[in-house]
Amino acid sequence: MLLKNSIKGIAKLINKNNVLTTKEERYCYAVDAFNSPFTGIKPDCILFPETIDDVQKIVKYANQHNIPIVTRGAGTNMVGACVCTKGGIVLNMSKMNRILNIDPINMTASVEAGVILGNLKASAEEFGLFFPPDPSNYKVSTVGGAIAQSSGGAMSFKYGTTKDYVLSLKVVTADGELHTFGAQTTKDASGYHIAQMFVGSEGTLGIVVEAVLKLIPKPQTSNVVVAYFNSAEDALNAVNEIHTSNIFPAAIEYLDNNAVKTIEEYTHCHFKTCYDSLLLIELDGDEKSVSSQIDKVINILKTSNTTKIYIPSTKSDYDRIWTARRSSYAAATKIAPDIISDDIIVPRKYIPEIISKCRELADKYNLSMCLIGHIGDGNLHPQVALNTQNSIEYSNYINAKSELYEKVISCGGTLSAEHGIGLAKKEYLSKFIDKSAIEYMRMIKKVFDPKGILNPDKIF
Amino acid sequence: MLLKNSIKGIAKLINKNNVLTTKEERYCYAVDAFNSPFTGIKPDCILFPETIDDVQKIVKYANQHNIPIVTRGAGTNMVGACVCTKGGIVLNMSKMNRILNIDPINMTASVEAGVILGNLKASAEEFGLFFPPDPSNYKVSTVGGAIAQSSGGAMSFKYGTTKDYVLSLKVVTADGELHTFGAQTTKDASGYHIAQMFVGSEGTLGIVVEAVLKLIPKPQTSNVVVAYFNSAEDALNAVNEIHTSNIFPAAIEYLDNNAVKTIEEYTHCHFKTCYDSLLLIELDGDEKSVSSQIDKVINILKTSNTTKIYIPSTKSDYDRIWTARRSSYAAATKIAPDIISDDIIVPRKYIPEIISKCRELADKYNLSMCLIGHIGDGNLHPQVALNTQNSIEYSNYINAKSELYEKVISCGGTLSAEHGIGLAKKEYLSKFIDKSAIEYMRMIKKVFDPKGILNPDKIF
Repeated sequence: MLLKNSIKGIAKLINKNNVLTTKEERYCYAVDAFNSPFTGIKPDCILFPETIDDVQKIVKYANQHNIPIVTRGAGTNMVGACVCTKGGIVLNMSKMNRILNIDPINMTASVEAGVILGNLKASAEEFGLFFPPDPSNYKVSTVGGAIAQSSGGAMSFKYGTTKDYVLSLKVVTADGELHTFGAQTTKDASGYHIAQMFVGSEGTLGIVVEAVLKLIPKPQTSNVVVAYFNSAEDALNAVNEIHTSNIFPAAIEYLDNNAVKTIEEYTHCHFKTCYDSLLLIELDGDEKSVSSQIDKVINILKTSNTTKIYIPSTKSDYDRIWTARRSSYAAATKIAPDIISDDIIVPRKYIPEIISKCRELADKYNLSMCLIGHIGDGNLHPQVALNTQNSIEYSNYINAKSELYEKVISCGGTLSAEHGIGLAKKEYLSKFIDKSAIEYMRMIKKVFDPKGILNPDKIF
Repeated sequence: MLLKNSIKGIAKLINKNNVLTTKEERYCYAVDAFNSPFTGIKPDCILFPETIDDVQKIVKYANQHNIPIVTRGAGTNMVGACVCTKGGIVLNMSKMNRILNIDPINMTASVEAGVILGNLKASAEEFGLFFPPDPSNYKVSTVGGAIAQSSGGAMSFKYGTTKDYVLSLKVVTADGELHTFGAQTTKDASGYHIAQMFVGSEGTLGIVVEAVLKLIPKPQTSNVVVAYFNSAEDALNAVNEIHTSNIFPAAIEYLDNNAVKTIEEYTHCHFKTCYDSLLLIELDGDEKSVSSQIDKVINILKTSNTTKIYIPSTKSDYDRIWTARRSSYAAATKIAPDIISDDIIVPRKYIPEIISKCRELADKYNLSMCLIGHIGDGNLHPQVALNTQNSIEYSNYINAKSELYEKVISCGGTLSAEHGIGLAKKEYLSKFIDKSAIEYMRMIKKVFDPKGILNPDKIF
């Protein structure tokens, strides 16, 4: 808990309209989108910098007075990466939300960290360009958050994740100094890729204030094949066939029957609820290519025990499918007060085993679980709806999670594909990666933030 | 210079057939593909590890006795990154050249560092898969070298560079310990991306012994549009039109008339030598998509003052074009004994200014210069043929280089796109990137290699 004098000192650094200190305001910032009985500690104040200079002043003061800083964008983080464990400052980047430049010839975007991903995507599209990372919450989440958590999304199957689009970062390190890491060019072999290492570092190494991002030509068109199966195995066999057939879908998404039912009840999107498994296979490119890819996918599906195929014939049908898919989290909130969406990834061939294990655990521990995922990537989001205040329910969830993680480890998978580690997963990290790798992470942390003021207690 | 005892000690660590110590042998390893009057210092011995255990034993010994280690693959490096400055050990990874696994369902390859890129590409293609990085020397250069130097190539316009394909690395650090950084999954948000930072670190942070690499579906087909222009400006305008037309070529390559003439004389590939500039525009995808993309490119070219267009009609014609393009370095060796191929990159819109500047400098300093580059990326390789032993020629070259770099800086470009910094460019690095970024690189180096035994004197 900060002394009143410290808060007063901080508050003087920036415009007073950009400082929140009441108990109610601080309470709102004690949580992010990670649901657990653990309530984050309230910050002592929430600051909204408007400029890089604001950020530098705040960080210098905090470093001098050993005040923790938790940087935050839209707060959609699912692993508790933007809640406080020791009080201190929440640095809310949402007012640094300017798209500084979209350069159509260089195919780059220069943005402040608080820019909403959806706004960036829309601005790029005005120039015929494309910023692919598309976490389901992209209409509200920020570029800074995507960088902090190494966000992916459905389109990462073809287009990679945020790290593949970060060219250079302006970063304020713990001493309050401003640095540029990386170059604004599409390739860079001028020393260590420090900017790449900042991607996924969850605000623990520095505060990203601006980014230069790579854009690519927007595919002329796209469409999605909706395919239903009577078993997860059939769906997975179809995915494997597609993988080895010289087709490169933009996305291959999986939803199990629980997920389909939950989404259908919430969105009335006309999903069929009588089948075991659903695949969404997104194809993009020019008109002729999309139609020829769809033909090939349909041929594969026909020999893969597909029960029903649907292809949207209008833009609004197409949008309805993807809006439904992206509503899975919101839809699940109708089942129980708290949703915990996990984020595991395995080499693709182990996906059948992981889906079986998830179903077995849901039965064993009586959990309401929707299985959703970027199956093309081997990335599943088992989404559990529960009341975390009910200690039996919660301990069942924790037991199921531990057993699932053991299975993921035995399949050579890892603990997070695109959500990060934060608080939620840190106790498990050493089971998944070499202890020595964690030790190197700690040493790198010390290089950039020797006093440990930046997002303390996260990741490791 | 090592004491005889030390060499004897090292030689005992591994199979004696894997140790070279004669003067003649050491002389061969005093250079790489970087041409300059500076001759690298001869190593004291060259060691060929066959296993990770060999590497660990050597590194532990070297660390204990403060012996520098310069790791090397095929030695095709163009910036002196694999020559010795203090003697010591050259660790030649060419016997660790096994492709351990190509997994078609997971779309990954597990390889030892000494695997030839061309062999990896061919093995992936047997499964309908594609490893895109394609430096011109891919038929001889190694995966470890591509990782060390952050290699790109023509296809990086669409497919990115080596860093976009590195999932996980097995690394022996300076203390001889073996670590795994990253995960074998296609996405990973489990802590800092240390593996990404190793890409481009030129053997200064650790010795990469194995890598798990991402593969993607191999495009069904591809073809190339060869377009001639009467001026560089016309060629560049055509490139800009293509960039903003929803077409995504795999590669857009530029060759000026000097390059075209030099290559034509060497390869007799039927390039037309009477035009100022040449573009190679590679389109890939399924049959229908390639043909529709070619139509669109031709339409753009027709409104962009293209003088002549050629499209190969057979596989052998197509291969001839690309073999010719990739022979530019070899072709230039017919002009003068030494070739220095630079590697600069600017935001694309400044490419016209850079080409003008290169031509102006070639005139001013009487240099024989071929201009070749991955123009889609904004990446040019001005390739100067000279006799570096002629001090006037060499000092002209150095002066031209300095002036060119000033121009690149004023355009917001950077010092290397895909060759690295090594010895050749280290004195210029601080002009291009923040001094504080270099300082952080030094601190990171210290974390992984506190005694500084790994590839000393490189990068910074």
